[in-house]
Amino acid sequence: MSQRGIAILGSTGSIGTATLRVIARHSDQFRVVALTAFGNAVLLREQTESTHPRYVGIVAPAGDADRKWATGVECLIEAATRPDVDIVVNAIVGAAGLQATLAALRAGKRVALANKESLVIGGEFVLRACREGGGEIVPVDSEHSAIMQCIGARHESEISRLVLTASGGPFREWNVDRIARATVQDALNHPTWTMGRKITVDSATLANKALEVIEAHHLFDVPYDRIDVVVHPQSIVHSFVEFVDGSVLAQLGFPTMELPILYALTHPARIADAPARRFDPTAASPLTFEPLDHDRFPAFALGVQAGCNGGAAPAVFNGANEQAVCFFLAGDIGFADVPRAIESALAALADLAAESIDDVVAADAAARLHVTELFRQR
Amino acid sequence: MSQRGIAILGSTGSIGTATLRVIARHSDQFRVVALTAFGNAVLLREQTESTHPRYVGIVAPAGDADRKWATGVECLIEAATRPDVDIVVNAIVGAAGLQATLAALRAGKRVALANKESLVIGGEFVLRACREGGGEIVPVDSEHSAIMQCIGARHESEISRLVLTASGGPFREWNVDRIARATVQDALNHPTWTMGRKITVDSATLANKALEVIEAHHLFDVPYDRIDVVVHPQSIVHSFVEFVDGSVLAQLGFPTMELPILYALTHPARIADAPARRFDPTAASPLTFEPLDHDRFPAFALGVQAGCNGGAAPAVFNGANEQAVCFFLAGDIGFADVPRAIESALAALADLAAESIDDVVAADAAARLHVTELFRQR
Repeated sequence: MSQRGIAILGSTGSIGTATLRVIARHSDQFRVVALTAFGNAVLLREQTESTHPRYVGIVAPAGDADRKWATGVECLIEAATRPDVDIVVNAIVGAAGLQATLAALRAGKRVALANKESLVIGGEFVLRACREGGGEIVPVDSEHSAIMQCIGARHESEISRLVLTASGGPFREWNVDRIARATVQDALNHPTWTMGRKITVDSATLANKALEVIEAHHLFDVPYDRIDVVVHPQSIVHSFVEFVDGSVLAQLGFPTMELPILYALTHPARIADAPARRFDPTAASPLTFEPLDHDRFPAFALGVQAGCNGGAAPAVFNGANEQAVCFFLAGDIGFADVPRAIESALAALADLAAESIDDVVAADAAARLHVTELFRQR
Repeated sequence: MSQRGIAILGSTGSIGTATLRVIARHSDQFRVVALTAFGNAVLLREQTESTHPRYVGIVAPAGDADRKWATGVECLIEAATRPDVDIVVNAIVGAAGLQATLAALRAGKRVALANKESLVIGGEFVLRACREGGGEIVPVDSEHSAIMQCIGARHESEISRLVLTASGGPFREWNVDRIARATVQDALNHPTWTMGRKITVDSATLANKALEVIEAHHLFDVPYDRIDVVVHPQSIVHSFVEFVDGSVLAQLGFPTMELPILYALTHPARIADAPARRFDPTAASPLTFEPLDHDRFPAFALGVQAGCNGGAAPAVFNGANEQAVCFFLAGDIGFADVPRAIESALAALADLAAESIDDVVAADAAARLHVTELFRQR
């Protein structure tokens, strides 16, 4: 059997490095054809020396970048559309991943999508590119991978409800006042998952779970009123699917991104792999579930409402959140300013058009500008 | 769409009456064609008056049986093989269900199998009848239904392990001495499931879980060393399936037999149904799991070992257990005598042949006789 060619966009991040570990274990099946990174030339060079990709790109090269590497955002599109690439692992952080997703789908690739923002912002446009280009979207998010595995070969009409699990993040048991005073270090102290800084903050505000609800809506064609979220601090049950007869399936495992990454590469088949920690129910006991507290985590409801409103609202939600998280991580604003910024942007930019991809990209930019000016005024 | 014809064998028992409730909700899809009961003529008459089956049989008629009803064990075969029957729900208690399963499968029917003893005793002979007759076995046991749902359309080669859940029964937290003194009333006080008396005692000894392991081995063609059991007192997770990539799926729901019964009728499709209690993870929290204690529940290991030994051993295990439980329910022997009787029968009848169905039926009878004589000597 010939190896499938893989392009990894964002290879030096948490998902990118996990993908390389997975591929290294299954080099009979997969071959790294292209790698791109944002700016970490040191790690990118290490990766190229061990995997020998045909194409290497770095978006923002510093002095230690290789002169043979492609540069600029165009490298993402080039890597994603190469003829020798079968699967594009899109592990880019944030809205910057949208164009590569579109290009890969239009070129008929499978996109192993860790960049949920592609679907949040691009929504119908991404789905259309997928249909028209003959591409395929397979989620890498553990929740969406769980849902896809639970659905299996069943028809959409048999699904009655999706229940995404949320760890609740580091502030699950904190009160409102303490959350408002949370530091960057507090927000980066995730209880169950080791991830990049941006998504870790999103997991603390629960903005990430709103992004996941919107992503699930598009991926599985389920209306928002049939997508629920439940807080599950152990992060063992990765999501539930309820079917029309009332039966519920769940996918479980100790937290690791390697499993959903591997499954995104092999779907709909599975191949033998040894997880770092084999599932054992007695070691996972007890599994607890509690409702999500909207009062303490207002970013969640703002995001889901943006999804329900549709149009440019999800792009505004995401753009405002990205900019606010950027400021928070830089120490410029407080933790409670993040949902405040999102709410302000959504209110100010409620009427933006979303007739095209250009419109949603413009909405993203407008939201970032709004948040930037919001805090400049202070 | 034409309705599918259903024969319910054991219609007056717990599974039989639940099946009638399920069919009543879905009379557009299913029609009761035949009903049989062991001896409860009063309830059987009520059922015939509401469902108007074309065939009614009673195995052991008392004075209040209808003269038009068929009688004797032959009625089970007649009901199971009628041309207007598409699905046979075999809800007979114990080894008495074997011949009806064989006849239905040979006649090319789908057997919705609540009578796990058919597979435990008949094993390969039942599977051969299924293949040769063009029949189909769909389990009704909640654990096996869960496993079938988790496997979905996946190939057997993708399964790495089955983990059956067990409530642990009423004596889960009792010590050995207290279990030995358990009364019939204690044993019938099941914490999560309302079932018939025989299976409820089997759930207290955990003999039932051994029968389920043997059933799962035959149904899913998974070797015994890849079938585990975990005690899960809440009976919410009905079983787990681990796949070769380490991913685990589970099927969940508040305990009700109506869901697995409905699914056995509709498999592989699902139809819309409103469960008595919709699944809510927060209401199911916490879910706990603990190892099965072999010292306190020796019947379990005896049964699994009988399954591993194969041949006539499963029939001996089951026959000895049925006879011992019968004596226990009659107040003739103590609770700890049940596993003792099983162990004695398995030791005494280790060399019985199992070349044919007649052999396993003879082994069943020999085990019952052994247990009867064991206690007569006392």
